[in-house]
Amino acid sequence: MSKPLILVCNDDGITAPGIRALVEVVQEFGEVMVVAPDSPQSGQGHSITLADPLRLKPVKSFDGIEAFKCSGTPADCIKIAKHFVLKGRKADLCVSGINHGSNSSINIVYSGTMGAAMEAAIEGIPSIGFSFLDYAHEADMEVCKPYVREIVKDALENGLGGSQLLNVNIPALPAAEIKGIKYCRQANGKWVETYLEKEDPYGKPYYWLTGEYVYKDAGEETDIWALENGYVSVVPSKFDLTDYEALKKRMDT
Amino acid sequence: MSKPLILVCNDDGITAPGIRALVEVVQEFGEVMVVAPDSPQSGQGHSITLADPLRLKPVKSFDGIEAFKCSGTPADCIKIAKHFVLKGRKADLCVSGINHGSNSSINIVYSGTMGAAMEAAIEGIPSIGFSFLDYAHEADMEVCKPYVREIVKDALENGLGGSQLLNVNIPALPAAEIKGIKYCRQANGKWVETYLEKEDPYGKPYYWLTGEYVYKDAGEETDIWALENGYVSVVPSKFDLTDYEALKKRMDT
Repeated sequence: MSKPLILVCNDDGITAPGIRALVEVVQEFGEVMVVAPDSPQSGQGHSITLADPLRLKPVKSFDGIEAFKCSGTPADCIKIAKHFVLKGRKADLCVSGINHGSNSSINIVYSGTMGAAMEAAIEGIPSIGFSFLDYAHEADMEVCKPYVREIVKDALENGLGGSQLLNVNIPALPAAEIKGIKYCRQANGKWVETYLEKEDPYGKPYYWLTGEYVYKDAGEETDIWALENGYVSVVPSKFDLTDYEALKKRMDT
Repeated sequence: MSKPLILVCNDDGITAPGIRALVEVVQEFGEVMVVAPDSPQSGQGHSITLADPLRLKPVKSFDGIEAFKCSGTPADCIKIAKHFVLKGRKADLCVSGINHGSNSSINIVYSGTMGAAMEAAIEGIPSIGFSFLDYAHEADMEVCKPYVREIVKDALENGLGGSQLLNVNIPALPAAEIKGIKYCRQANGKWVETYLEKEDPYGKPYYWLTGEYVYKDAGEETDIWALENGYVSVVPSKFDLTDYEALKKRMDT
């Protein structure tokens, strides 16, 4: 059997330590190709670039691995990879990350990491987004590696268990304190934003978004619960956003 | 009873004809506030602006209606509206659009129109995105108005039927040929992208995204089917992306 082809992306940009850690793990399993943004793209969600052209340049960021940086969003990276890098071959797996920061709960909708993974899932490629709950650039990603390895190995051997997309978050704990992997649902939560208000040098106001995550969900089957209790959370996710319960109610009335 | 408070946004920008048509309809029902992007934001999905500050400026775009333009994405507009425009009041309804172009099927994940509506839904505000299947700037939005009116009236009187978010698409047909409103699910489809390849004045290549929508879904209960058969499609949608079927399978094994 030929080696599986694994496409790697992220949203922190091609120079982020997280994507390096991810490549180090997945290259154990197959042929790896990397297409990642040339600049940080946090908060880009599933956005794509329509009004501007894109650039794609080869980089020698990873020993012996074909890698490109793209001027677009994470979802753009997947689209352009399909076209100019994979060139008609289909990846067996797409992995995105390892993100520097959480993409659990509602963060999935804002996440460029998950935007890339979802774009690949729409293409029919089994896809996994990995995020580490330590925001620091210099975060030690070693603790993530055994879990990335286990989840990628299982995905290549057994598929994603009926799903096309997994949202994996890894708690920022010492290795010995992580209790294992827990499959769970997306917790119901949101960000309560605040804005830093300042004046520019010309006396005009500007506003800079910040905020605090608020957890509104008491369930023990959520990703937030899993992470707060020392587990790696895995949420099987999808891009069919239909609210089937509400639809059924409409059809019945 | 006091008049309902309706927040209006879009992704084509505050000067687009679509938002004007939307404001004209919803001002029949209550107090209207508008916060929309200061430039076109198509394809922005649910992206938010983290790396840059935002500007918010009052505009006199609409007679007698408090309106602002924001330098951010559609989702940013909702966040900043909540903070600086609604100032502690909660909107009774958020409407986004009318988008110049379809947001049916998979387009929901790329759509700034739906990104804004979803952001308001996350805030607990019942939200509706409206899109018209005529991409032209000068498209005649009159055909949309009776359906916008009917759906908004029903939403204010009866809520969204257990959902927090509706994705409404209106076919580009003469009024007499539209058969009515059909509740449906998100069709399974995707974009097959192509790139316009050119060289810049310095001989460097650039790539410009375009593509063709490919419909992979034979169901008659989809939004694409409804639109192709002359109906206004309404898909109750949600921001919990958990794939519960796949999760259940994991839990059972």
